[in-house]
Amino acid sequence: MGELRIGMVGYAFMGEAHSQAWRTVNRVYDLPVRARMSLIAGRDKANVAAAADRLGWDEHTTDWRDLINRDDIDLVDICTPGDSHAEIACAALAAGKHVLCEKPLANTVEEARAMVAAADTARERGVRAMCGFTYRRVPAVTFMRQLIADGRLGDLRHVRAVYLQDWITDPEFPLVWRLQKDKAGSGALGDIGAHIIDMTQFVTGQSITGVSGLTETFVRERPLPSADGAALGAAKAAETSKGQVTVDDAALFVARLSGGAVATFEATRMATGRKNGLRIEVNGTKGSLAFDLERLNELEFYDATLPGTELGFRRILVTEPEHPYLSAWWPTGHLIGYEHGFTHQARDLLEAIGNGTDPLPSFADALGVQLVLDAVEKSAGSGSWTQV
Amino acid sequence: MGELRIGMVGYAFMGEAHSQAWRTVNRVYDLPVRARMSLIAGRDKANVAAAADRLGWDEHTTDWRDLINRDDIDLVDICTPGDSHAEIACAALAAGKHVLCEKPLANTVEEARAMVAAADTARERGVRAMCGFTYRRVPAVTFMRQLIADGRLGDLRHVRAVYLQDWITDPEFPLVWRLQKDKAGSGALGDIGAHIIDMTQFVTGQSITGVSGLTETFVRERPLPSADGAALGAAKAAETSKGQVTVDDAALFVARLSGGAVATFEATRMATGRKNGLRIEVNGTKGSLAFDLERLNELEFYDATLPGTELGFRRILVTEPEHPYLSAWWPTGHLIGYEHGFTHQARDLLEAIGNGTDPLPSFADALGVQLVLDAVEKSAGSGSWTQV
Amino acid sequence: MGELRIGMVGYAFMGEAHSQAWRTVNRVYDLPVRARMSLIAGRDKANVAAAADRLGWDEHTTDWRDLINRDDIDLVDICTPGDSHAEIACAALAAGKHVLCEKPLANTVEEARAMVAAADTARERGVRAMCGFTYRRVPAVTFMRQLIADGRLGDLRHVRAVYLQDWITDPEFPLVWRLQKDKAGSGALGDIGAHIIDMTQFVTGQSITGVSGLTETFVRERPLPSADGAALGAAKAAETSKGQVTVDDAALFVARLSGGAVATFEATRMATGRKNGLRIEVNGTKGSLAFDLERLNELEFYDATLPGTELGFRRILVTEPEHPYLSAWWPTGHLIGYEHGFTHQARDLLEAIGNGTDPLPSFADALGVQLVLDAVEKSAGSGSWTQV
Amino acid sequence: MGELRIGMVGYAFMGEAHSQAWRTVNRVYDLPVRARMSLIAGRDKANVAAAADRLGWDEHTTDWRDLINRDDIDLVDICTPGDSHAEIACAALAAGKHVLCEKPLANTVEEARAMVAAADTARERGVRAMCGFTYRRVPAVTFMRQLIADGRLGDLRHVRAVYLQDWITDPEFPLVWRLQKDKAGSGALGDIGAHIIDMTQFVTGQSITGVSGLTETFVRERPLPSADGAALGAAKAAETSKGQVTVDDAALFVARLSGGAVATFEATRMATGRKNGLRIEVNGTKGSLAFDLERLNELEFYDATLPGTELGFRRILVTEPEHPYLSAWWPTGHLIGYEHGFTHQARDLLEAIGNGTDPLPSFADALGVQLVLDAVEKSAGSGSWTQV
Repeated sequence: MGELRIGMVGYAFMGEAHSQAWRTVNRVYDLPVRARMSLIAGRDKANVAAAADRLGWDEHTTDWRDLINRDDIDLVDICTPGDSHAEIACAALAAGKHVLCEKPLANTVEEARAMVAAADTARERGVRAMCGFTYRRVPAVTFMRQLIADGRLGDLRHVRAVYLQDWITDPEFPLVWRLQKDKAGSGALGDIGAHIIDMTQFVTGQSITGVSGLTETFVRERPLPSADGAALGAAKAAETSKGQVTVDDAALFVARLSGGAVATFEATRMATGRKNGLRIEVNGTKGSLAFDLERLNELEFYDATLPGTELGFRRILVTEPEHPYLSAWWPTGHLIGYEHGFTHQARDLLEAIGNGTDPLPSFADALGVQLVLDAVEKSAGSGSWTQV
Repeated sequence: MGELRIGMVGYAFMGEAHSQAWRTVNRVYDLPVRARMSLIAGRDKANVAAAADRLGWDEHTTDWRDLINRDDIDLVDICTPGDSHAEIACAALAAGKHVLCEKPLANTVEEARAMVAAADTARERGVRAMCGFTYRRVPAVTFMRQLIADGRLGDLRHVRAVYLQDWITDPEFPLVWRLQKDKAGSGALGDIGAHIIDMTQFVTGQSITGVSGLTETFVRERPLPSADGAALGAAKAAETSKGQVTVDDAALFVARLSGGAVATFEATRMATGRKNGLRIEVNGTKGSLAFDLERLNELEFYDATLPGTELGFRRILVTEPEHPYLSAWWPTGHLIGYEHGFTHQARDLLEAIGNGTDPLPSFADALGVQLVLDAVEKSAGSGSWTQV
Repeated sequence: MGELRIGMVGYAFMGEAHSQAWRTVNRVYDLPVRARMSLIAGRDKANVAAAADRLGWDEHTTDWRDLINRDDIDLVDICTPGDSHAEIACAALAAGKHVLCEKPLANTVEEARAMVAAADTARERGVRAMCGFTYRRVPAVTFMRQLIADGRLGDLRHVRAVYLQDWITDPEFPLVWRLQKDKAGSGALGDIGAHIIDMTQFVTGQSITGVSGLTETFVRERPLPSADGAALGAAKAAETSKGQVTVDDAALFVARLSGGAVATFEATRMATGRKNGLRIEVNGTKGSLAFDLERLNELEFYDATLPGTELGFRRILVTEPEHPYLSAWWPTGHLIGYEHGFTHQARDLLEAIGNGTDPLPSFADALGVQLVLDAVEKSAGSGSWTQV
Repeated sequence: MGELRIGMVGYAFMGEAHSQAWRTVNRVYDLPVRARMSLIAGRDKANVAAAADRLGWDEHTTDWRDLINRDDIDLVDICTPGDSHAEIACAALAAGKHVLCEKPLANTVEEARAMVAAADTARERGVRAMCGFTYRRVPAVTFMRQLIADGRLGDLRHVRAVYLQDWITDPEFPLVWRLQKDKAGSGALGDIGAHIIDMTQFVTGQSITGVSGLTETFVRERPLPSADGAALGAAKAAETSKGQVTVDDAALFVARLSGGAVATFEATRMATGRKNGLRIEVNGTKGSLAFDLERLNELEFYDATLPGTELGFRRILVTEPEHPYLSAWWPTGHLIGYEHGFTHQARDLLEAIGNGTDPLPSFADALGVQLVLDAVEKSAGSGSWTQV
């Protein structure tokens, strides 16, 4: 079995989750290729060395370009903030490296288009590109798509999707990079709104064609993070200890889908008490499905074709060996967690590379999400219905 | 104790619910005045006679004007479709009768304004008018308002409210009056959307200032109800057995509230599997509250001021004697049902009349709902943000 | 239509619930006979007069024997504590009055046997007797029985039933009659354990054949109720302000059923946070059913004959017009409450009397429950398996 | 940092779960010692070789005695059926190897006592022994213990614990080793009943002092597993294709705890629809806690000291960094799964070994569970209350 040598950029939250996936994937799945955790890149020398040791990477570097330039790296895994995605991904693809890029694909539609072009060119040479909308790989979500594709819901009429978090409700929470437009691109909209847009398009097999919405920033000024403050010196820090929040705290919109369904969406980091509350419900003429990421092993299915007195939403525990991805894990009823989606993603990517097929979601799929995000921002600005 | 002689118009769903309330209210509450079920009006002679006998009204009539003209009627209770509300209510108020009018107050803003004017004039003479947004009287909803008014949620940031039903998902469901614009005014928007608009304004104490949304009619043609078909004669009926649906099946919109919160709303009769799914959640800086009408004895409360490791939504069973309206009912943990809201409404109305105060919601409150409905329709037509 | 003149003994909790049923039943169901609330009996003259006025009874008396002696009473409805059931019921039946007797049927097996004999004799003369295990008439419970009787669960293997309340967790809660063996017969066992025993035998169609269990009284001494205290005079009350609790606070047992299933039971008033937590789950070879009285409009059904990846407990909202008793009430999804069970009981009783058939549960069914209670007490005393 | 060289016996379900833990533990926790997956033992040469390759062990052997005899193994991890635990554990401890032994500790009390003695002797030489009741390491369970130890529930009055599975409901499910008394010791009682006994004693800090119960085997004959059948040859297999089930399918009992609480327990593999339904609820004078393994990231807490109208069970999402074990994992609201308990167990064991302290649960704790299992079996046989 061949070895696929991974080079990863970034070692924060996403870097840790991806490491767990690379470390685990060949231990639980039979795959045509085996991942090797070869090289990790990060800007801070001491930190990247510590991360390499702790997470189990063979080598480390402070320059991501090393991943591109070295011959012994086969795949570049991009786990940095969105402002550097385009540059790294395009360079890697040009150098013939497969690319796995965290979502959102880029901070602007323009960058995303360039990345799609780079992926198209690379594909012709057998080089693969994939965007990391990991929640597609939660088994209940994959199963949801299957049931809809099998026609179990009939014609779709409604989608309602929310992604509710509350980690910045406190006005004293600092101005981290995710609250700065130049680094993060947008706020709740791009960070978590992107997930529910992708999931909607994934499970329904339809695309969002138009939107109308609003965005809001409830807390417009926040303390600078201690690192930034420290850099300024104590006196200066006291003076200028606050900075402007340049992204949205919340984004809400209604939408139409290509197959005739209508939808509501809400993404916010201000929903006090909701920790990772991604919920999606789809209603069709023959049934409905509902999912909640805070109970990710469960799927609610209403099958309207059953006898009338017996109708109800049923809580399917998506832990049977026949459910998507579950063959690798534990007996029926034994739960999996958040990180398993990354292992499933790694599995699908290794299989695609091993078999010479294109992994999904493609960069083009991710651009599709970006275009919706862009339309929402425009609609929020103009107050008008906006075609995607 | 004085007697308040009730005259009611209509004996369908709402007429039955109101009858249950008048029959019960003085049996469970101590009130300054006792309701007497005096006279019921309905157009069909046999049906109204049967209804009077079954529901327990002293007398019956086929002409609602009898309720206005007779001296021995003190209050007119209007349980008809929205197209007749304005005429009956204005006549009753002019005749010095107290009025309880089912929601929505009227089918148009113009009618609603006339009713508010009539109520204002009547009030000067001690005549009372109330609109029947009964869900305000679900104890969990009343308690929700109390907690918010007491500042337990801090500053409000989010409302998300849906009212999901599924009784017309089948395209063969007939074209009943609720699907005809001339009788019902609007579809899901006015029928059930009105409830979540009123409830939002009630529990938050804020008003909706602007909206942007869409409406959709998924099934545009439906079989005529058998009664209408029969009237046409068999041959004609076969030809013209279908009629146009002239109202919306679903309405979705985003909104801003006067206190700075943002909100999403959805009202639909096409949410397969959701039977009476009115749900509302409010998030504030200090906590959150969530309510679901399909579990109407429960209220979920997240109090963010508790210690960090112990935070969570707690399911309050709103059945304690200290909870609103509950002193009348059963021991702790013994549930009440849908109809109890009508008894609570009757209690508040009898108390207001007995004490010479104005009952709520007033016709002006109900006009406030009407103005939001109107703005949603306009926004759905223009595709633009619309001020209320 | 004939009139059935009711005489009721008792006007506390059960008296109020029964009054609500008699007041409502003919307003919502078409029945062969109409209930008239004729005469209410209670020992305290002022209180019974006030109750008659408030609850809507034609007349009142301080002597329950008046109900027996008067010719214009057709049915005696017994809502007193268990120690008086046998005397009143036997006298009423002997006088040719139909009897509805609250559960538990009696405080001792001996009394219960006498009542069964009286009912048997009366039946021959067309006089009917029924015991008020109202929870059989919760639509979800009746539907549960239907599904099991239809074979939808296959062979039954497990029952687990609990009835959890918490109203006496506070040691300062007074020594009310329900905590005194001479009045109440037993504690949690007879009061709420009786309900889960009857419900188990009702839904499974099987009888409990043997038990092994324990009982516990956590708080053995409690303050005397203020009324009793007051009677003693202030000084004396201070001295002797506490009395012995002579019943169990909790009863727990395992059991075998006649059809081969095994079962666990728990009845307690010390389950902090559980207000009216009657829960029952039945597992069979083909499926399972679960019910919770705190969500009495819902029934959970697991149908193991569906495809493997789609299995799950489904939440049936038991509010369809085709569900038991629901034809009388509100549209789909509109909840009913605790008191509706009493109206359903009144319906079934009026139908039986009108049609000349025997209502269920019979006194013999109720004796069956009593025998199980007796076996549990014996087992708790001896520490041994006890046949029923 | 020192290395701890692990030798593991067994590569089935438990072997895979333990491998995942050893592979992960030092990647997510900072620990005084690093685990090395050195040597895996299993009887079948090809299978153990494949397991070593797939799971990532350095070497493999077909003889578990190699783990004892080799100097370069520091810890023996026993993942075999219960009938071999005592022999392996005692040999390993005698050879100065630390031991982690899967639950139940042994198949008989006698063996368990011998193991405790071996552990006591070994402890004096600094050799550590631990039994693998992993569910103690589910963060919600650990947190439950903390809250109870902190007095948040007051005096404990009730425990109700069930472990419900359904994987052998089908009578055609084969006679695997877990259904054979000589290999498994007992059935549902020892396999899953052991978990709820240990969890009860762990979270309450009390011990079970007496029990009364029953056991049942619903399906007494089952097809032999294909491997066994194949060994017999086709003709013979057809004749003797069924074998006796020699263990219980279900065990139910009531119990008393050392601190005065009473409890019900049920362990079954016949609860159709319940996949891994370990549920435990504890009620005390000041509050209650409830946990369900099918929702293992959640804990329900009822704090009776809050104001009366606001009381309710609150769903704590046990995913905060301040919750037990959670510092290692993902942000708030991101779930963990079944396998994480094994990583937590590995963490605690490595910390104990590194710090020279005794890990919990000790072999003596596990013997305590065994004694309760034994008392239940005796009570089921005699029909009498049995002291532990």
